[in-house]
Amino acid sequence: MKIAVLPGDGIGPEVTREAVKVLEALDLPGLTLFDGDVGGIAYKRHGHPLPQETLTMARECDAVLFGAVGDPSCDGLERHLRPEQAVLGLRQELGLFANLRPAKVFEGLEHLSPLKPEIARNLDILFVRELTGDVYFGDKGERIGIDGSREGWDTMSYSASEVSRIAQVAFRAARAGDCRVCSVDKANVLETSQVWRDTVIEAAGAHPDIELTHMYVDNAAMQVISRPSQFGVILTGNLFGDILSDLASAAVGSIGLLPSASMGERETDHGIFGLYEPIHGSAPDIAGEGKANPMATILSAAMMLRHSFGCEAEAARIEAAVEKALADGIRGGDLGGEDGCEAIGAAVRERL
Amino acid sequence: MKIAVLPGDGIGPEVTREAVKVLEALDLPGLTLFDGDVGGIAYKRHGHPLPQETLTMARECDAVLFGAVGDPSCDGLERHLRPEQAVLGLRQELGLFANLRPAKVFEGLEHLSPLKPEIARNLDILFVRELTGDVYFGDKGERIGIDGSREGWDTMSYSASEVSRIAQVAFRAARAGDCRVCSVDKANVLETSQVWRDTVIEAAGAHPDIELTHMYVDNAAMQVISRPSQFGVILTGNLFGDILSDLASAAVGSIGLLPSASMGERETDHGIFGLYEPIHGSAPDIAGEGKANPMATILSAAMMLRHSFGCEAEAARIEAAVEKALADGIRGGDLGGEDGCEAIGAAVRERL
Ligand SMILES: CC(C)[C@H](C(=O)O)[C@@H](O)C(=O)O
Ligand SMILES: CC(C)[C@H](C(=O)O)[C@@H](O)C(=O)O
Repeated sequence: MKIAVLPGDGIGPEVTREAVKVLEALDLPGLTLFDGDVGGIAYKRHGHPLPQETLTMARECDAVLFGAVGDPSCDGLERHLRPEQAVLGLRQELGLFANLRPAKVFEGLEHLSPLKPEIARNLDILFVRELTGDVYFGDKGERIGIDGSREGWDTMSYSASEVSRIAQVAFRAARAGDCRVCSVDKANVLETSQVWRDTVIEAAGAHPDIELTHMYVDNAAMQVISRPSQFGVILTGNLFGDILSDLASAAVGSIGLLPSASMGERETDHGIFGLYEPIHGSAPDIAGEGKANPMATILSAAMMLRHSFGCEAEAARIEAAVEKALADGIRGGDLGGEDGCEAIGAAVRERL
Repeated sequence: MKIAVLPGDGIGPEVTREAVKVLEALDLPGLTLFDGDVGGIAYKRHGHPLPQETLTMARECDAVLFGAVGDPSCDGLERHLRPEQAVLGLRQELGLFANLRPAKVFEGLEHLSPLKPEIARNLDILFVRELTGDVYFGDKGERIGIDGSREGWDTMSYSASEVSRIAQVAFRAARAGDCRVCSVDKANVLETSQVWRDTVIEAAGAHPDIELTHMYVDNAAMQVISRPSQFGVILTGNLFGDILSDLASAAVGSIGLLPSASMGERETDHGIFGLYEPIHGSAPDIAGEGKANPMATILSAAMMLRHSFGCEAEAARIEAAVEKALADGIRGGDLGGEDGCEAIGAAVRERL
């Protein structure tokens, strides 16, 4: 079990440290951790946000535990040197095409949602977002437009094989729940979406147990906040997934609790290679103060055990310990509480 | 004052009829109305959702009052013949590049929002959405991808002149409020957004009274529902504007009340040529039953008087009458009430 730990910037190191301690507390045989630089810190040390040695190390591991990147002191850099580019680089280089993001309101924390409690209570959506295609990675650049002024352009695209690959992930994931998949696109305007929709329908043919629906992205944004209970899995492309999964996280109201997994195709001994990270950012304003809530990173480590190492029991132990800690009133500052990063980590470990 | 009335499909005719009656009740000198077909009804009568005669008539008028398009019986048609294409066609052919969409919770109707009342109460955002560029109107098509499978593609782009034109609209609109403009893009990923952002910053140089901020679209989706009070005007492109303005409308909780304006560049005698429509759709399930709420269309007519005819006093009279009717407890079915379309129209006219 080889894990590359990439703490990154801001609060990344402190939250990652607690997640690592939780993993160590499980006494898993053969667990080996490697440390690497990524993001602003990597730029400062190696001149690039995603150094070659970090990439090589990640490739030689079975999974990556990622903290957060983003450093205001890098804002002035050219785009390809900015910390966020490490995120895009890792996804592309490691072939992490499937992003899984659960957005679920924890029992007893409905009041943290900006939604009314009776709506928030029913929010339990798993986003399956395609992560290596779409307008993110197509040809792009600048040119002179027909009106003679400077013009920026980007190419959006999806091929049938890219779509059917991510659709399979969504169908499999839906089966662990109640088999509802809603595919989100903008097929009334985009050719990319037309291929997306046709391919999802075709792929669903082999999965008669899946209840597949389709929704335009503008309507989906409305439905996520007004009737979230209608969704089980939301399957969507890179750009719409970026917007909608963040929207749903905000609707949960506690982004300090939300984990994510980005999966590739390479098989490990007991699962699939993946990168696991909290969905919150590097929060430079509170970095180093021990105030960050490590729960999202700890829950990301649980997803890692489940998906990359086949350790379902251990994953469930971690999740239960986090839920127990929350039930016992342990609260980070993000949840209106006073517990610090180390204290929360310790509280989770005690409840394992 | 020449107005092209395009009722369209579903509930379009009934809500437009009430808005027209409100306009007529104002006894404006020289008001002339022309009727045209658009959407599914136009396809059925003329073989095209946007017939040439409708377009010609719209061009010869000073403003268009639009109902709604969308007809389930047209779902099987090829995309270019489907009702929604009339919307895109009108925008492009009439050069309606600026979409203005207020999203504001009406006093006393906070309970209709899916957001907590203390958050909903502070939601008062004007969206200024670019409407004739972006990935909507770029080159697009299908090809064989490098992996040999079918691939759909679309080109996203913005030129500096397109961006500065819409930015000016946003700055002007912000001046009617508290001068805050937040420009939303995805400049960490898109070249289109980089040109967008640079151009907005440059355009703002001539407007030192405007407080300009920038936000990535994923974050904006989160902020609209968690801290809406931070926004005055949101300026954004066609695609992000489609998603975010619908999101904000859902957050308001009463889309039967929300109007919109789509403005061009052509000047009329007292304003600018524009198309005015409710943001709700054709609601085929209740069409013809007299149950639709015409308030959004009536408020769209008010926007028309203000922007295309310079009749600020009359616009304000209509808006006050609608607010009075709401305060008096008049409620369409969409707001949990029992009042029908004609009754609501009459109630507004009585209060003019
Ligand atoms: C940092 C940025 C490029 C990234 C994205 O847009 O994918 C982020 O928003 C995310 O969702 O992980
Ligand atoms: C019907 C559709 C093409 C249109 C759009 O995406 O612009 C609609 O959603 C809107 O916002 O008016």
